[in-house]
Amino acid sequence: MREDKLEISSRTVSRLTAYLTILNDLLLTRSRINSDELSKIMKTTSAQVRKDLSTFGAFGKRGIGYDVKSLIISIEEILKINTTTELILIGYGNMGHLITSNRNMLGKGFELKAVFDSSLEKVGKAVFNTDYVVKSVDSLEDYIKRHKIKTAILSVTSDAAQEVADRLCEYGITGILNLTARRLVLPEEVSIVNVDFSSKLRELNFWQNHPHNPKAGTY
Amino acid sequence: MREDKLEISSRTVSRLTAYLTILNDLLLTRSRINSDELSKIMKTTSAQVRKDLSTFGAFGKRGIGYDVKSLIISIEEILKINTTTELILIGYGNMGHLITSNRNMLGKGFELKAVFDSSLEKVGKAVFNTDYVVKSVDSLEDYIKRHKIKTAILSVTSDAAQEVADRLCEYGITGILNLTARRLVLPEEVSIVNVDFSSKLRELNFWQNHPHNPKAGTY
Repeated sequence: MREDKLEISSRTVSRLTAYLTILNDLLLTRSRINSDELSKIMKTTSAQVRKDLSTFGAFGKRGIGYDVKSLIISIEEILKINTTTELILIGYGNMGHLITSNRNMLGKGFELKAVFDSSLEKVGKAVFNTDYVVKSVDSLEDYIKRHKIKTAILSVTSDAAQEVADRLCEYGITGILNLTARRLVLPEEVSIVNVDFSSKLRELNFWQNHPHNPKAGTY
Repeated sequence: MREDKLEISSRTVSRLTAYLTILNDLLLTRSRINSDELSKIMKTTSAQVRKDLSTFGAFGKRGIGYDVKSLIISIEEILKINTTTELILIGYGNMGHLITSNRNMLGKGFELKAVFDSSLEKVGKAVFNTDYVVKSVDSLEDYIKRHKIKTAILSVTSDAAQEVADRLCEYGITGILNLTARRLVLPEEVSIVNVDFSSKLRELNFWQNHPHNPKAGTY
């Protein structure tokens, strides 16, 4: 299986990351699970579960199900989080503070290397829960190039979002987790994933008002 | 058009909520937009944009495009956020604090009515940026039933998530925005939308490692 040739929908990727969350939970209490049980937690069909997992070469055994641990390893390989990805965080406001105060938020495979802000009041101050200080955004270019950082979490104000994102890409960033409410327009080769709280509330609102389709909007 | 009969995919709903974010941004500077421009911001094709919007009866005019304001109104109607939805927040930790400290996070159409926590240290204390105090989770049943609350933001610890969610549904909640890392198993008629930070990082990581498909994983 050549992973880099896989054609895979973004919906499947979302589901895979959800499986991983569930399986890591399960691992604490049990070693096997079948597609029926997984489908209930995922609010999908067991056929869909089998389809998702077989795409990546994982096949359950009838009456026995899947081995939780090997499934985790397979999915981690697909998602390439069996290695560590170094991240930087731009913008040390409330959200930035939340991220550094709860290291579990990032999850396995991600390591926050540095935090940047443009505010003179924040630069040089200790970053909560870490042993480093907030760096100035003026040092972004140097830092990104020197440490070959590829991934950034963008948590600046909406007004600054596009301009800062443009600079990040210019300096070599290829993936942005966008926590701002602004949608970014960036070169096609840059990956962007948006975490937009109010969008999620709107989705929820939609599903609540369309109860004929309660299975959707779930992962 | 009977909205409650619409069969619509969860992916389309995600896209619609993203359009709304973009359009509200645009409204500050301009009154019209065409599908080409929208497709660039959405990282999709203009054919997809036209398809999405026509599903809901919005049709652009050749050479003129869409009227931004009417498009916003149409999408708000579909998503039923032209009325106000009352919310409660369960769990007043870092994330809860972030939500109350930035009212824009919830977006238009949502009003946070009360905050609950189980910790005796937090109950009775003022909720940051509001004129009310943290309520005890012991009063959840009474509050939800008396105020006919249907929607809750769940921001408790992972270990408590399932148990608290079970109680919320028992008391009448029909929609949960789940900010915990735990996946919830709830009655089929309950809508759940997960905001899972580490899942989103994993998605980003996947797209960065599969650059042949940079358009995906975007909304």
